[in-house]
Amino acid sequence: MAEIYLDNSATTRVCRAAADKAYDMMMHTYGNPSSLHTLGFRAEQELTAARQTVAKLLGAQPEELYFTSGGTESNNLAVLGSVEAHARAGKHVVTTAVEHSSVAEACDRLEKQGYEITRLVPDADGTISAARMVAACRPDTVLVTVMLVNNETGARFPLEKAIPGIRRVAPRAHIHCDAVQAAGKMPLLADRWGLDSLSASAHKLHGPKGCGVLFLRRGCRVIPRQIGGKQEGGIRCGTEAAPLIAAFGVAAKELPSYPEQNAHYTMLRERLLEGLRRLPDVRLHLPAENVPHIVHLSVPGLRSETMLHFLAQREIYVSSGSACAKGAKSPVLTAMGLPAEEIDSALRISMDMSNTLEEMDLFVQALQEAIRVLARR
Amino acid sequence: MAEIYLDNSATTRVCRAAADKAYDMMMHTYGNPSSLHTLGFRAEQELTAARQTVAKLLGAQPEELYFTSGGTESNNLAVLGSVEAHARAGKHVVTTAVEHSSVAEACDRLEKQGYEITRLVPDADGTISAARMVAACRPDTVLVTVMLVNNETGARFPLEKAIPGIRRVAPRAHIHCDAVQAAGKMPLLADRWGLDSLSASAHKLHGPKGCGVLFLRRGCRVIPRQIGGKQEGGIRCGTEAAPLIAAFGVAAKELPSYPEQNAHYTMLRERLLEGLRRLPDVRLHLPAENVPHIVHLSVPGLRSETMLHFLAQREIYVSSGSACAKGAKSPVLTAMGLPAEEIDSALRISMDMSNTLEEMDLFVQALQEAIRVLARR
Repeated sequence: MAEIYLDNSATTRVCRAAADKAYDMMMHTYGNPSSLHTLGFRAEQELTAARQTVAKLLGAQPEELYFTSGGTESNNLAVLGSVEAHARAGKHVVTTAVEHSSVAEACDRLEKQGYEITRLVPDADGTISAARMVAACRPDTVLVTVMLVNNETGARFPLEKAIPGIRRVAPRAHIHCDAVQAAGKMPLLADRWGLDSLSASAHKLHGPKGCGVLFLRRGCRVIPRQIGGKQEGGIRCGTEAAPLIAAFGVAAKELPSYPEQNAHYTMLRERLLEGLRRLPDVRLHLPAENVPHIVHLSVPGLRSETMLHFLAQREIYVSSGSACAKGAKSPVLTAMGLPAEEIDSALRISMDMSNTLEEMDLFVQALQEAIRVLARR
Repeated sequence: MAEIYLDNSATTRVCRAAADKAYDMMMHTYGNPSSLHTLGFRAEQELTAARQTVAKLLGAQPEELYFTSGGTESNNLAVLGSVEAHARAGKHVVTTAVEHSSVAEACDRLEKQGYEITRLVPDADGTISAARMVAACRPDTVLVTVMLVNNETGARFPLEKAIPGIRRVAPRAHIHCDAVQAAGKMPLLADRWGLDSLSASAHKLHGPKGCGVLFLRRGCRVIPRQIGGKQEGGIRCGTEAAPLIAAFGVAAKELPSYPEQNAHYTMLRERLLEGLRRLPDVRLHLPAENVPHIVHLSVPGLRSETMLHFLAQREIYVSSGSACAKGAKSPVLTAMGLPAEEIDSALRISMDMSNTLEEMDLFVQALQEAIRVLARR
């Protein structure tokens, strides 16, 4: 049986064209983009091309993009850097209780520095309405940071709809969106929505690990966190990882259209849910608004780790939640108020475009077998 | 005529074995090292192997290594993170006036926060003795940060000899070494020397851009700057760039022995200097203690940019100084008190093991021609 990879929200396989580009850059266009000679210029041209492609992906202008080492760096820079740049505007931050740790821990750090943090908890249906985001704001709110798609449940939080309301109530707030799980999967319109900043990561969309991007709207200020040199407009210094950035651009270009993706994921999802609903031990966690490529469930009584091990023996790879948590109890599910037995047995299935209907069936079969075999012990 | 690349201190070509490893990881071992399944474990094993190889390179233990996105991040983390961790120990920092911008600008930031910075200027012979480093320390010194090899002149600063003295005078100081230009070129003994931290970068030693490492001695504390998740012991969070880290390990393993390198570079250097000394317009800047693979010179009256352009047309690639400065007046040369005409016409030649005696001759010929042609204008 071939490998069935259903952990695409943790990371994706690099697409061949992107890996080829990275390889070619490492071996041939290896100049330092800041070098004042032909080899440097060639590397810089690759950066320019990637910047244009990724800007389109985010709905932004190329000159509003700053390449980083990944989603975590982008989120840290937006959250901590924007607050530091507007230290006198107020002491209140609005976020959710289910952010990725790179946003959540940055907010925790701000809290220790004396900021008041409002953490919105998803409703019973897994979502957080735009109205609730606006209602949480105050005139002294300096930062609103909300993810577009939750990395564990796949819930879609409509931050973009809240922006006009946030601007009315909190005119000085920096509005940041962690779009790491959304980028490449749905149209993003960073500029048109009126966001101040937005994060994305290459390795979630078949680009390489070690590369991310921060969109920062023209005129918006953040205090840089990585300093020394003048790369990326001084916002993010250090030799540009040209092979990775170029590969990010290629990966973005290679993405199938959104309607194509949507059709494929919806098809897989329906088949998967159909199978899962026949298993009485499975509890599905389906947010009212969500993305089709993530399905979250629990099998109360069967610990996630045991299940992952059982499935991995059959070369089926899923996760218990965020890879970053590495087995720790999910703060996201805890915040959502799931019962302990569902948190301990949580499974996240996250697909890419190479997954097939047959793989959905094989996963359901394996899960069924696991329940039969493991529950007996 | 084939390309002659003499800008290896800016960046190096990735060695084939390292590029192959990165490619293989991107395409096959693409799991998230934090994922709790086989694909994750396999990626993690690659990290473990790389950690062992790179630890040997630095003279450290694998568990003392934290992979980062590059030398800049490592230096920022050591300088800013160590001072933040020991905020109450004092307000004095010792460094040099010729550090890489990732150290220099971090020190500038500390100065703005109220720290007093002592910046040692190289002597007329380009060096800074260990005795001067010790003499600059005080009981309230919280950080000593000195590079091992200067990235523009190739001067070797004997920080390791100063450590016992620094410990006596400044027992609470964190001692950091920026070894970005030294790693892979000379034996490093981070542990035995008694350093608290040391930085290195993969792309300076034929590994990929976007990957660096911080050695942090067991028991030494820094406040993490990239937070969220528990990767790299919580010291440097974010999905590990596994393909780059694995490639860093391979590049480190592929390095020729130090005696072999030394013999090769000394041979090239002697030939190069012999040729340059025949050109009366050339002024050599040769620090009394230096590394053999960097040669720094000026051709007063011929601006660096003009010269780079002339040489690049002949596919000879050198630099005017640090690539990061991108044409700006070198703060290193300014600090060293070179006359303006020498700063404006500075050239750095930096070799790797693939360079040949013939290339040295061709460079000297081209330089001679440039002087003849350009001086006439």
